Amino acid sequence: MQKADFVEWLREGTISIPAALLTEYKNMHLSEQELVLLLQVLHFSEKGNDFPTPTELSGRMAMSAFDCTEILRSLIQKGFIEIIDGDSTDGIRFEKYSLDPLWDKLIDRFMQNRKQEKVNARQVEES
Amino acid sequence: MQKADFVEWLREGTISIPAALLTEYKNMHLSEQELVLLLQVLHFSEKGNDFPTPTELSGRMAMSAFDCTEILRSLIQKGFIEIIDGDSTDGIRFEKYSLDPLWDKLIDRFMQNRKQEKVNARQVEES
Amino acid sequence: MQKADFVEWLREGTISIPAALLTEYKNMHLSEQELVLLLQVLHFSEKGNDFPTPTELSGRMAMSAFDCTEILRSLIQKGFIEIIDGDSTDGIRFEKYSLDPLWDKLIDRFMQNRKQEKVNARQVEES
Amino acid sequence: MQKADFVEWLREGTISIPAALLTEYKNMHLSEQELVLLLQVLHFSEKGNDFPTPTELSGRMAMSAFDCTEILRSLIQKGFIEIIDGDSTDGIRFEKYSLDPLWDKLIDRFMQNRKQEKVNARQVEES
Repeated sequence: MQKADFVEWLREGTISIPAALLTEYKNMHLSEQELVLLLQVLHFSEKGNDFPTPTELSGRMAMSAFDCTEILRSLIQKGFIEIIDGDSTDGIRFEKYSLDPLWDKLIDRFMQNRKQEKVNARQVEES
Repeated sequence: MQKADFVEWLREGTISIPAALLTEYKNMHLSEQELVLLLQVLHFSEKGNDFPTPTELSGRMAMSAFDCTEILRSLIQKGFIEIIDGDSTDGIRFEKYSLDPLWDKLIDRFMQNRKQEKVNARQVEES
Repeated sequence: MQKADFVEWLREGTISIPAALLTEYKNMHLSEQELVLLLQVLHFSEKGNDFPTPTELSGRMAMSAFDCTEILRSLIQKGFIEIIDGDSTDGIRFEKYSLDPLWDKLIDRFMQNRKQEKVNARQVEES
Repeated sequence: MQKADFVEWLREGTISIPAALLTEYKNMHLSEQELVLLLQVLHFSEKGNDFPTPTELSGRMAMSAFDCTEILRSLIQKGFIEIIDGDSTDGIRFEKYSLDPLWDKLIDRFMQNRKQEKVNARQVEES
């Protein structure tokens, strides 16, 4: 192992996810496979690829391209991810995934927990 | 939604993982369920709990405590996680999970890729 | 360089900060020295030390313990950090730093920018 | 505060830095201003701008564009950052900052500490 390898490692970097996503995906009715696929989409996007193909996704996942297509379809249907299209500056049409619906649902879930905690705290005070 | 909720969100923070783990777990023969269980163990540890029970893990995962036990056992057998025991400063014996074997395997995998890339680069030069 | 060194590096981990803090501290009237001291307090806290001394802080900063004390005092006066005290489970009084006021101010700043952007967008539409 | 603001916050994301950079920059003879300027260069790069101007940098820092130029020059001279140039796919020459020298020095520093720790451990054993 040489220093150049270590530098390359640092260049690849880390991926950061909100802690709430890890603690709440279960309550949002997401499976581990769905969660990891969402993380892959996030990571591809951070590296400049906003619309990875099922083949690109399955290249990094323990499932086939066919399964990735199925899960993507299901995530779109359940409203966790959406496809947005538009025109780039040079007039070329493009499609991209947006994770805004995921963040939206995560925030809802987070707020629901906060409300519940306040109710619980009040009941403890009153009892 | 109030500012206090937002502050609470920031306090919960983020979890950071090496990008290589997300791109290489497949090649390390880990499933999505195994990957997420490892992330949960990492997150529990960052919050001060070094030995989460299967029940605590399954409370955050889309699987039963029984399944968590099975996956933990399999991860130990395959050498991704180990149980370390020792004595704390006040003389109490404790057990904790160590993810060092995971990092070890991830580094091996990363180095193998680096070697392959160099071989490929040389073949391109020579052809 | 051996693999054990690399594993140790991974164990030390990363520190994550909201991108907005890096882009907005200037507008919050924080200097680079104040920003880094706040990051140090955050990092000490993540490692389990909620009340680092000026000597501990200056051990990692390019300034004396005296200067750290001065900056801490100024950050408290300007309302970026506060000292909270309480009783731990075993009845021992303790003091700790809280960064909640920093997050509070950062959110204010972020919201102010959002409002300004909407005003600008409206002006562009109307013109 | 509305949910859309929260989603926007999540979209801006976080910046992750190796913990070792925060604990060792002092020993690498970097000031807080130099450290933060390096973080800004890193953050600009993650957002797709590999060659921010002194004016862009000073727009986010508590110092003038002139001071940013001076610090950049000094960081290049001291070997923490370098300017790389090349040709993009469409034949346009470009310049970009590379932080590889910083990671290189950080790894050196980290290895030096590791060696020192081993020496200390041996002395404790022998005494």
